Amino acid sequence: MYSPTINKLIDALKKLPGVGQHTAQRYVFHWLKSGKVEVNELKNALDNLLKNTKSCELCWNFSDTNPCLICANPKRNPQQICVVALVPDIIAIEKTQLYNGLYHVLRGSLDGTDLDNINELKINQLLKRIENNEKIEEIILALNPDISGETTMLFLDKKIRGINPRIKITRLARGLPMGSDLQYSDEITLGSALKNRI
Amino acid sequence: MYSPTINKLIDALKKLPGVGQHTAQRYVFHWLKSGKVEVNELKNALDNLLKNTKSCELCWNFSDTNPCLICANPKRNPQQICVVALVPDIIAIEKTQLYNGLYHVLRGSLDGTDLDNINELKINQLLKRIENNEKIEEIILALNPDISGETTMLFLDKKIRGINPRIKITRLARGLPMGSDLQYSDEITLGSALKNRI
Repeated sequence: MYSPTINKLIDALKKLPGVGQHTAQRYVFHWLKSGKVEVNELKNALDNLLKNTKSCELCWNFSDTNPCLICANPKRNPQQICVVALVPDIIAIEKTQLYNGLYHVLRGSLDGTDLDNINELKINQLLKRIENNEKIEEIILALNPDISGETTMLFLDKKIRGINPRIKITRLARGLPMGSDLQYSDEITLGSALKNRI
Repeated sequence: MYSPTINKLIDALKKLPGVGQHTAQRYVFHWLKSGKVEVNELKNALDNLLKNTKSCELCWNFSDTNPCLICANPKRNPQQICVVALVPDIIAIEKTQLYNGLYHVLRGSLDGTDLDNINELKINQLLKRIENNEKIEEIILALNPDISGETTMLFLDKKIRGINPRIKITRLARGLPMGSDLQYSDEITLGSALKNRI
């Protein structure tokens, strides 16, 4: 019912996660109202995304440089590697300002126990990185505490011990999140919080 | 914390209605994963939006042509004009397949009783259209039944009667929406539904 031009843009937007007809429509009419400057700004930003964004071939972070700014920073501690599933997880950890080591982004986590997608992940790259670097003293497995994350962490734990049993392997503590309610927290979380009380 | 390129795109996306840091981030990482083809498709669609989309200077619909396909369609009834606030409202009415007249898009509705934004709306264009066209027999005021919509409809009602008191001015019926519950409907809606029972 819209013009072909508008429909094409709506269809392109509907490929975004969580965007349906209604949201896509809202975006299009926002741009028709906001006009050239804003649309051109977005177009340029999209252009640059493809042109400038590289994968850091050490840690598989997205960056404008390879290696990325974290890997290239001599003030970061190369003895620690924090393994995360996705690039935004790095941002979450950096925001705490409590970690000064390096990262390794797996770009996902294992689908299930059948390890179907193992070759899509940067797992071999991590294992080689550990093999080739005698300096590494600690690997922090910082994946999500869900089935897929736990499977991945168990798998990595075993592999890393096989390569270098001297390396300390740690995980993020489980406990009560800020602002949560004892009454509604699940027993595994509460049990961990109790065991690791401070 | 992200690369400058990613941050720039996130900032551009955050100008969209309802899009915050988190959603913008999701979109960017979706594109980094989906790659060139999808991003280029979106860029082209944005390009075409600016290049091809015109305002129909009769009804102020957005269209690839001026006049738009509805205004240019000789099968539509030129004696009826349905006045709506926004272009998506046309789509909603067209979907009912119960209206065969023309439209007029105001591109918004009056902010309040002070009529501050009256010159941003296509109200003068509507009044001129009515003045210059003797054929018009009915104006359907199809704005939202909220304060802003009601203010606009009252205002238009008075103005149109001033121009041509012979024109029939109608509004959308108020009644119970499909699937609604009598118990929870407000008294104005229920009152209207009762008065206009069929």
